[in-house]
Amino acid sequence: MDIRPLYDRILVKRVENPIKSKGGLFLPESASEKPSEGEIIAIGQGRLAEDGTVKPLAVRVGDRILFSKYAGNEIKIDGEERLVLREDEVLGIVEA
Amino acid sequence: MDIRPLYDRILVKRVENPIKSKGGLFLPESASEKPSEGEIIAIGQGRLAEDGTVKPLAVRVGDRILFSKYAGNEIKIDGEERLVLREDEVLGIVEA
Amino acid sequence: MDIRPLYDRILVKRVENPIKSKGGLFLPESASEKPSEGEIIAIGQGRLAEDGTVKPLAVRVGDRILFSKYAGNEIKIDGEERLVLREDEVLGIVEA
Amino acid sequence: MDIRPLYDRILVKRVENPIKSKGGLFLPESASEKPSEGEIIAIGQGRLAEDGTVKPLAVRVGDRILFSKYAGNEIKIDGEERLVLREDEVLGIVEA
Amino acid sequence: MDIRPLYDRILVKRVENPIKSKGGLFLPESASEKPSEGEIIAIGQGRLAEDGTVKPLAVRVGDRILFSKYAGNEIKIDGEERLVLREDEVLGIVEA
Amino acid sequence: MDIRPLYDRILVKRVENPIKSKGGLFLPESASEKPSEGEIIAIGQGRLAEDGTVKPLAVRVGDRILFSKYAGNEIKIDGEERLVLREDEVLGIVEA
Amino acid sequence: MDIRPLYDRILVKRVENPIKSKGGLFLPESASEKPSEGEIIAIGQGRLAEDGTVKPLAVRVGDRILFSKYAGNEIKIDGEERLVLREDEVLGIVEA
Repeated sequence: MDIRPLYDRILVKRVENPIKSKGGLFLPESASEKPSEGEIIAIGQGRLAEDGTVKPLAVRVGDRILFSKYAGNEIKIDGEERLVLREDEVLGIVEA
Repeated sequence: MDIRPLYDRILVKRVENPIKSKGGLFLPESASEKPSEGEIIAIGQGRLAEDGTVKPLAVRVGDRILFSKYAGNEIKIDGEERLVLREDEVLGIVEA
Repeated sequence: MDIRPLYDRILVKRVENPIKSKGGLFLPESASEKPSEGEIIAIGQGRLAEDGTVKPLAVRVGDRILFSKYAGNEIKIDGEERLVLREDEVLGIVEA
Repeated sequence: MDIRPLYDRILVKRVENPIKSKGGLFLPESASEKPSEGEIIAIGQGRLAEDGTVKPLAVRVGDRILFSKYAGNEIKIDGEERLVLREDEVLGIVEA
Repeated sequence: MDIRPLYDRILVKRVENPIKSKGGLFLPESASEKPSEGEIIAIGQGRLAEDGTVKPLAVRVGDRILFSKYAGNEIKIDGEERLVLREDEVLGIVEA
Repeated sequence: MDIRPLYDRILVKRVENPIKSKGGLFLPESASEKPSEGEIIAIGQGRLAEDGTVKPLAVRVGDRILFSKYAGNEIKIDGEERLVLREDEVLGIVEA
Repeated sequence: MDIRPLYDRILVKRVENPIKSKGGLFLPESASEKPSEGEIIAIGQGRLAEDGTVKPLAVRVGDRILFSKYAGNEIKIDGEERLVLREDEVLGIVEA
């Protein structure tokens, strides 16, 4: 089952964010907190402007993004948790 | 009894969302929660722009959609529960 | 006593919404709840746009409409309860 | 003492709204509730649009109007209670 | 010390509002309540429109005005209480 | 350390507002309350309009201003308390 | 791991703000409070205007800024705390 988000919404799969300490060690994040990092797996057709035109988004499918932990709507697709965000809720793009 | 939604509103019939696990098994969702997936059974004439013109919607009758579980207004038509949403409350369209 | 609503407001008389079950039986709604269906008995001259012009409404006198049960203002006309809604509070038009 | 309301504000004198029952009898409203019907005794010069121009109001001095019971600001003029409303708070005009 | 209000703000001195009863008697208002009537002692240069231009106000220095009792900001000038309002908080102008 | 405020923000140093009574005596304000009068020590480059242009401010460095006691953000510069306000939070300019 | 903020967002690293007293002594701030001063380490492509165009920001990478202590979203990058702000949350730029 695929989901096509509408307008400026994007579909995101949360990814674990392994914490690399200064010394190069990887520490797991607190298990009780969902990661606020994810990969974009689908994007809408663009932001709807006030005049009814649709403007392209700045994010792309495959982008790794950061978002606020309270952002978006949780949905389930084939039993897997996904997140639907608005592009404006994306704090930044991770450049590896 | 048919309902014609106004402007950017859409009429939705909730549908059960069978959960397919990774292994192919179907698991019922929690019975206490209404599905947040539905089929569009009618749409309004379009979104009313600030200048008074009406812009076509991006959704179509028959689309299978996802929405937030707190979205919309519950109504009853011939004893059946239906939901009236604004198009902006549609998180995405399910592409089978 | 007649009421002429202003701009995008409409005057509505609630009507009972007999529930027709799948088997064709009519069941009364819960007596403790006011119907959220009504008939439009008067409409305003149109929606006031930001530039000061007035745009025609999409609803007509005589339309049977659905609305949210918390919508509008209750008024009394000659001892009868009426409801004043904004057109934007109309969820849809009932097409018999 | 006369009051000239500013812009889209109107000055209103509440009037008793005798309730006429279906059978033609007049019943007093509950004494504990102020009437939400009134007569316009003065109006402002017009609604201030975003571009700074002033647009004429749709109500006139002498109009009998209905309004929500929580609308407006109570003032006293020569010891008499009056109400200052914005035109947008007028639900409708009573046509006798 | 003089105060020059900015943009659409006005500087107001509260004045006692002697209540004249129908019979011509003057009754003092409740002592525990500040009067919501005042005289304008200074006005700003005009309302700032969205396009950055400044539009003239409809009130003048010397106008006697009514305002909501919760409107504005209290300030002290040379130990005297004054009120700074926005023009939009003026309910009406008293015409003697 | 100098601070350059952004856009329509201004940097303000609170100043004591000696209260001059009618008889010419100076009374200290209540010690428990911060003065809501200050001197502008820096201003931003101008207000950002919706179209992206920057409009000049009406206040100048050196202006003595009044503001609401809840306005703005407190900051510390070299251990001294300063206040950052938006120009719209300035109630008026003191003209000595 | 680098983060590219979107639109008018900026990525900020908090920096300690040593307090210099009038006499030239440096006093540590209260340890229990995070500094509300930081250095910009990345900026978005610009503010998205209502017409869909992108306007350049007034801040630059490397700017030392002040912000309200409740502003922005905390994120972790490689185990280090960073802050994502909108440019509008920047109170001012520190000029050394």
